[in-house]
Amino acid sequence: MIQSFVFSDGKLAGRDLEIEALRIVRADKGLVLWVDLENPTDEEIKTILEGVFQFHPLAIEDCMTPSSLPKIEDYEDYLFVVTHAVEFTRTTKFATMEVDMFHGKDYLVTFHRTAVPSVTIMRDRMTKNAGVIARGPDRLAHTLLDLIVDHYGPVMDELRSELEEIEERMLARTPEKEFVNELLHVRGDFSRLRTIIRPQRDMIEKLARGESKMIRPIMLPYYRDVRDNLARLDETAINYHERLMLAFDIFLNKAAFEANEGIKFLTAVTAVTLPAVIIGGWYGMNFAHMPELQWRHGYLYAWTLMLTMTLVMIFYIKKKKWF
Amino acid sequence: MIQSFVFSDGKLAGRDLEIEALRIVRADKGLVLWVDLENPTDEEIKTILEGVFQFHPLAIEDCMTPSSLPKIEDYEDYLFVVTHAVEFTRTTKFATMEVDMFHGKDYLVTFHRTAVPSVTIMRDRMTKNAGVIARGPDRLAHTLLDLIVDHYGPVMDELRSELEEIEERMLARTPEKEFVNELLHVRGDFSRLRTIIRPQRDMIEKLARGESKMIRPIMLPYYRDVRDNLARLDETAINYHERLMLAFDIFLNKAAFEANEGIKFLTAVTAVTLPAVIIGGWYGMNFAHMPELQWRHGYLYAWTLMLTMTLVMIFYIKKKKWF
Amino acid sequence: MIQSFVFSDGKLAGRDLEIEALRIVRADKGLVLWVDLENPTDEEIKTILEGVFQFHPLAIEDCMTPSSLPKIEDYEDYLFVVTHAVEFTRTTKFATMEVDMFHGKDYLVTFHRTAVPSVTIMRDRMTKNAGVIARGPDRLAHTLLDLIVDHYGPVMDELRSELEEIEERMLARTPEKEFVNELLHVRGDFSRLRTIIRPQRDMIEKLARGESKMIRPIMLPYYRDVRDNLARLDETAINYHERLMLAFDIFLNKAAFEANEGIKFLTAVTAVTLPAVIIGGWYGMNFAHMPELQWRHGYLYAWTLMLTMTLVMIFYIKKKKWF
Amino acid sequence: MIQSFVFSDGKLAGRDLEIEALRIVRADKGLVLWVDLENPTDEEIKTILEGVFQFHPLAIEDCMTPSSLPKIEDYEDYLFVVTHAVEFTRTTKFATMEVDMFHGKDYLVTFHRTAVPSVTIMRDRMTKNAGVIARGPDRLAHTLLDLIVDHYGPVMDELRSELEEIEERMLARTPEKEFVNELLHVRGDFSRLRTIIRPQRDMIEKLARGESKMIRPIMLPYYRDVRDNLARLDETAINYHERLMLAFDIFLNKAAFEANEGIKFLTAVTAVTLPAVIIGGWYGMNFAHMPELQWRHGYLYAWTLMLTMTLVMIFYIKKKKWF
Amino acid sequence: MIQSFVFSDGKLAGRDLEIEALRIVRADKGLVLWVDLENPTDEEIKTILEGVFQFHPLAIEDCMTPSSLPKIEDYEDYLFVVTHAVEFTRTTKFATMEVDMFHGKDYLVTFHRTAVPSVTIMRDRMTKNAGVIARGPDRLAHTLLDLIVDHYGPVMDELRSELEEIEERMLARTPEKEFVNELLHVRGDFSRLRTIIRPQRDMIEKLARGESKMIRPIMLPYYRDVRDNLARLDETAINYHERLMLAFDIFLNKAAFEANEGIKFLTAVTAVTLPAVIIGGWYGMNFAHMPELQWRHGYLYAWTLMLTMTLVMIFYIKKKKWF
Ligand SMILES: [Mg+2]
Ligand SMILES: [Mg+2]
Ligand SMILES: [Mg+2]
Ligand SMILES: [Mg+2]
Ligand SMILES: [Mg+2]
Ligand SMILES: [Mg+2]
Ligand SMILES: [Mg+2]
Ligand SMILES: [Mg+2]
Ligand SMILES: [Mg+2]
Ligand SMILES: [Mg+2]
Ligand SMILES: [Mg+2]
Ligand SMILES: [Mg+2]
Ligand SMILES: [Mg+2]
Ligand SMILES: [Mg+2]
Ligand SMILES: [Mg+2]
Ligand SMILES: [Mg+2]
Ligand SMILES: [Mg+2]
Ligand SMILES: [Mg+2]
Ligand SMILES: [Mg+2]
Ligand SMILES: [Mg+2]
Ligand SMILES: [Mg+2]
Ligand SMILES: [Mg+2]
Ligand SMILES: [Mg+2]
Ligand SMILES: [Mg+2]
Ligand SMILES: [Mg+2]
Ligand SMILES: [Mg+2]
Ligand SMILES: [Mg+2]
Ligand SMILES: [Mg+2]
Ligand SMILES: [Mg+2]
Ligand SMILES: [Mg+2]
Ligand SMILES: [Mg+2]
Repeated sequence: MIQSFVFSDGKLAGRDLEIEALRIVRADKGLVLWVDLENPTDEEIKTILEGVFQFHPLAIEDCMTPSSLPKIEDYEDYLFVVTHAVEFTRTTKFATMEVDMFHGKDYLVTFHRTAVPSVTIMRDRMTKNAGVIARGPDRLAHTLLDLIVDHYGPVMDELRSELEEIEERMLARTPEKEFVNELLHVRGDFSRLRTIIRPQRDMIEKLARGESKMIRPIMLPYYRDVRDNLARLDETAINYHERLMLAFDIFLNKAAFEANEGIKFLTAVTAVTLPAVIIGGWYGMNFAHMPELQWRHGYLYAWTLMLTMTLVMIFYIKKKKWF
Repeated sequence: MIQSFVFSDGKLAGRDLEIEALRIVRADKGLVLWVDLENPTDEEIKTILEGVFQFHPLAIEDCMTPSSLPKIEDYEDYLFVVTHAVEFTRTTKFATMEVDMFHGKDYLVTFHRTAVPSVTIMRDRMTKNAGVIARGPDRLAHTLLDLIVDHYGPVMDELRSELEEIEERMLARTPEKEFVNELLHVRGDFSRLRTIIRPQRDMIEKLARGESKMIRPIMLPYYRDVRDNLARLDETAINYHERLMLAFDIFLNKAAFEANEGIKFLTAVTAVTLPAVIIGGWYGMNFAHMPELQWRHGYLYAWTLMLTMTLVMIFYIKKKKWF
Repeated sequence: MIQSFVFSDGKLAGRDLEIEALRIVRADKGLVLWVDLENPTDEEIKTILEGVFQFHPLAIEDCMTPSSLPKIEDYEDYLFVVTHAVEFTRTTKFATMEVDMFHGKDYLVTFHRTAVPSVTIMRDRMTKNAGVIARGPDRLAHTLLDLIVDHYGPVMDELRSELEEIEERMLARTPEKEFVNELLHVRGDFSRLRTIIRPQRDMIEKLARGESKMIRPIMLPYYRDVRDNLARLDETAINYHERLMLAFDIFLNKAAFEANEGIKFLTAVTAVTLPAVIIGGWYGMNFAHMPELQWRHGYLYAWTLMLTMTLVMIFYIKKKKWF
Repeated sequence: MIQSFVFSDGKLAGRDLEIEALRIVRADKGLVLWVDLENPTDEEIKTILEGVFQFHPLAIEDCMTPSSLPKIEDYEDYLFVVTHAVEFTRTTKFATMEVDMFHGKDYLVTFHRTAVPSVTIMRDRMTKNAGVIARGPDRLAHTLLDLIVDHYGPVMDELRSELEEIEERMLARTPEKEFVNELLHVRGDFSRLRTIIRPQRDMIEKLARGESKMIRPIMLPYYRDVRDNLARLDETAINYHERLMLAFDIFLNKAAFEANEGIKFLTAVTAVTLPAVIIGGWYGMNFAHMPELQWRHGYLYAWTLMLTMTLVMIFYIKKKKWF
Repeated sequence: MIQSFVFSDGKLAGRDLEIEALRIVRADKGLVLWVDLENPTDEEIKTILEGVFQFHPLAIEDCMTPSSLPKIEDYEDYLFVVTHAVEFTRTTKFATMEVDMFHGKDYLVTFHRTAVPSVTIMRDRMTKNAGVIARGPDRLAHTLLDLIVDHYGPVMDELRSELEEIEERMLARTPEKEFVNELLHVRGDFSRLRTIIRPQRDMIEKLARGESKMIRPIMLPYYRDVRDNLARLDETAINYHERLMLAFDIFLNKAAFEANEGIKFLTAVTAVTLPAVIIGGWYGMNFAHMPELQWRHGYLYAWTLMLTMTLVMIFYIKKKKWF
């Protein structure tokens, strides 16, 4: 699906142009053009990216194939940017969506395989009230990047709540196997998130330092603002990852703590009951001549002996704090 | 709440001016102006930051929203600085408070959401006896930064005493669950502290190297002094964090040490009592023909056998150092 | 085996030339020459590398001896590149194959000890339809490097499936020894893979930045494309390595979890059966006067006592969650 | 206590001058002056550092307050250096002593709170036979730094011997608690040592690269020599720290090894004695009709059964290597 | 022992000159001179290094005292290089030998305390057939460095075989104490090796980049070749160290695996034999009235009860995979 927007002096001057009209607008330096390709057919890609804009075949290839690492590339006449939006839904849980941009002097072309909320919001806004944003492709690109980065926040919050659930369960008692699976899963999500946040931060940092002539000096503070948000997200992700690994270490050693409690109880109970067991066994022997068995107070003696030994054991066990 | 201070030649020339007066002082190059916004209303923010000073909307936005990472940003006419003060109270324990500053050629604007002790001290000092500090906004800014960094010391001491308590309890015996919670909490505090100390150190380092034209060369040693304090705090925080992780490692392995003591005792006791148990059981059998039972010294033989075997066991146990 | 290809204006103009013909083509600036040495004899090496091309003896030595680290070296008149192709076969599993290249203004010389699939594919393509690729040695070199890097993908997939098998077995129960061997083996493979990916990435990065005059500016995006693929592979390898180490940590602590289950059961069973054992032993004593034995409901009393004590134990055990 | 030395052409020309004389010598470019302040009174600090030399108030403050991090600061007219000497005594064990230096064109001022052996040695040498050392403050400063760094050697040796004692005790059996305390203590000492060695190395490196105009090119190899010693000490400290952490890891896992020995013995002993216990218990039952009890060779049968089962158990135990 | 070699146009023109002759050759720019000092007397050091060559006293001191860290130092007229040869012998095992070099425009002076194989080989070669090597001190130095680095290979192989033996023993069963000692010893060897390889690599890298005017551009590829070898050795050493630490981790957790096997067996055996023990004890009680004892099929009932309970236990044990 291809949607196009033509702006003149910050006002929407046209929408969804035909190919020929696109070519004309592209050639006109006074107009700002945004073309959004949402899951386009190979035909559409060929017509727009190759035909109208004549982008480098490698950049087009990067659009068409999935790219797991964000990047920025300077092709003289335009910047090519690979970035990733994120989403957290009930069904698919954490998911990343690649958004590619071609950023020229007076146009912005965006490319994505699925419907991306940030782009949808942006299209709505441009339709209703473009305003100052539509005055240059650097403003358009910034607005889109800002929307994408703003969507990281709630995803991070979802991951934090998963992390907190894991921390809680780790301190409580839980069946091992599922827990480990879940922990590995959340770790994987954090890992993927950091894999895309870090290079995006570096990439926006480059733009914010004014390294590209596509972005006017007046826009630099806005790119710095996006970089700040990414820096904060990165810092947060590092911190969460550390907490996760700590929870993991505690979990790994949990078994040892529980085993210790069991061993202490076992040791205490064995020690305390040994006198009764030994004496009971010993005087159950059937020797013909066992003087104690004939003693008048033999049974009392057995009780006294047993209780004394048991008390000594209890005393010892208490001292060792095994009970 | 907005408070303003006008200094002329290092002397307090006016306080808490009206908006119009502020505009006039702002335009007068000969006067030094400090405006402090403590938890201002949106109205006040609009009037002062947008109206009087015309700061960049992104910097104003950074003031209004919480920023977890300190930073410095150069907007040609002024520096915008996000910094964090810390406090350690009985009730809230460790807390950070954002303090933002706009540092122009002849003015300083500070912004904070809560009452910050360092700012309060500074306001008192300026009211009573401004002196040399009031001769330039770089001196004002340095004094405030110095007060903020000086307040890190006692907080670090509080955290160290929490750390030492944890180390002590870790070497003693404690119930697991609360201890782990506390350890995670203190680790979180150290982590947050380092998250703000590190970038503040880098930020002050930049100023101390004379990268900003807002700070006169004569002030550089004073900024280096603040940087030294932050470097020291950072070094200390790193060291405490290492100690904490070491304590954690010891704690995690504590259960294994205790379990070992239990196992050694259990093993020793089992070994030592086995002869009595086996012999007691064996000669408790009811076979019609068991010659030993009829022996004249059968019972003595049982005792001798039991004691001999027990002594052998004790000897073995001693050699293995299990008791 | 030596194969040579002469291209004129992107068309194959000759194949497998004699030495003398090679010398002539080499001297002719208008022709592009590719010479591939597959496991050449020392004689052939001497004739071609020393005789025809007069390469530096150290570069020739680097060809002849195995080099475990990829590198790039600039000898004024030509680039010398050591790179590694990878293969994953049923028999030898993961294997690396060194491919060395001499990249001059109008020639490419490749050297390898074994048949390398990427080179074979390249030779076929050059024979059938050289096209634009044959217009310069920088295109030839890029195509070969691209083919080599493309072959890393399936090998990475094989390693990932080995990794996933290990993760699965780690969560299930397996005999220790073989598992550890396998884990060490896969770790070794990942380690070797990263040892060659990292320096190749740095090496291609250098070429992609235009540091060598052998590569025309128009080719730089193509080298950046290869670098992107290597960056992606490196990122993936790092991630897999982390997962492997995590699986390893879980595996190491698995025994403790299982031991804990055993200990809990042992403790529970010991506690629950102790009353029966103690009472059974105690009233098996043969003292002449044991009043309980003569009680009318003595046996009932024994049962009651035993069941009561057992229930207390079961209650305690349930509370401790040992069962 | 203040001591001063005036050198003229490498010869001691005067000692312990009055304040007025100090001022005159300070103004005379032809004389070299060394003033050493050992635990001076506030009065003395004021007179000398503020009055005679007019050092920067922040540098004076750095002298007066303890500074845990070494540093170098360039105040145009002089270098200000914070460095740390170390000592290892029977009573206080490892201790660091701050030594501060002001290094001008023709003077050196040293400041320290306690008597520092290196300074004492230096004073003696200057009194007896100053020689070439007294020809410039860069030589004086180098000699003092060299003496300070030379004193690190024996302290490092003491720490190594403590480390070796810990390694030895870790491999032997020791009571837990004291050992952990000692290990934490030695780790703390190494940590403090590295905290001061690292920045001193960086600091001397800067001087050795000729970054300060206070140090003549001819002196650079001498500063490189000090840097080499610090690099060596740093390398050694890193290595010792790694050994300590390894010893710690072994110690933490020691309990598991010992517990394993106990468990193996317990398991073996339980298995081997079970037949006797079971048979002994079984044929101790008092059923009216138990055929085996009336068998002619019933008791022999019990023995045979018991021995057979025990042998089977021993065989199994041997195979499992539990004994 | 001092040996000297004079070369003229790559031919050996003289050997073992007198001091006076050395002075003359040293002054003659057309001749290349190599002086090798093997464990020289203090007298010889004084005469040659101070007298004939007038090297810097600090460089001479560095020769005379052991230097554990390789380094390179540029004294205008000559390079001073500290490097380390290695050896692995049956008796001393792994040993390092310091080799120092002074590398001037037309001379090379080497200094070592013990007979170093690389130097011996070099002396032989120079005596028999100097050839192109003798045409410049940069060739002489390169040849010596190359020989020294070539000798690292076999030492690395020895260490690898020690490592593999450790890995094998770690997977098998071994007595703890000696194993730990050996592991610590091998780790120490790897650590020492890396301590000298890393700085040597950096040092040769500097030379290979052409930073010294003592080395002609034509020699740079040769120094790069040495650097490649050191890079490879470093990579290998890092990899071996990782393997060693992994083996160590496995070893540390081995006890837990074995203990687990013991505990599983103990738990299984206890559970399976409990019915017999309980029933045997219970019906061994001597109550006057125990109905079961008088039952006609009482004993059969006891057997049935016991076998049923035992089968239930076996079933449970199998399900839990404890046997
Ligand atoms: Mg893509
Ligand atoms: Mg990928
Ligand atoms: Mg998910
Ligand atoms: Mg912002
Ligand atoms: Mg945030
Ligand atoms: Mg771990
Ligand atoms: Mg804020
Ligand atoms: Mg921020
Ligand atoms: Mg707190
Ligand atoms: Mg200071
Ligand atoms: Mg301080
Ligand atoms: Mg400190
Ligand atoms: Mg650890
Ligand atoms: Mg453990
Ligand atoms: Mg090779
Ligand atoms: Mg393999
Ligand atoms: Mg691509
Ligand atoms: Mg990529
Ligand atoms: Mg562990
Ligand atoms: Mg101080
Ligand atoms: Mg101490
Ligand atoms: Mg030296
Ligand atoms: Mg030394
Ligand atoms: Mg050393
Ligand atoms: Mg030496
Ligand atoms: Mg050795
Ligand atoms: Mg070699
Ligand atoms: Mg080579
Ligand atoms: Mg190599
Ligand atoms: Mg290798
Ligand atoms: Mg570990």
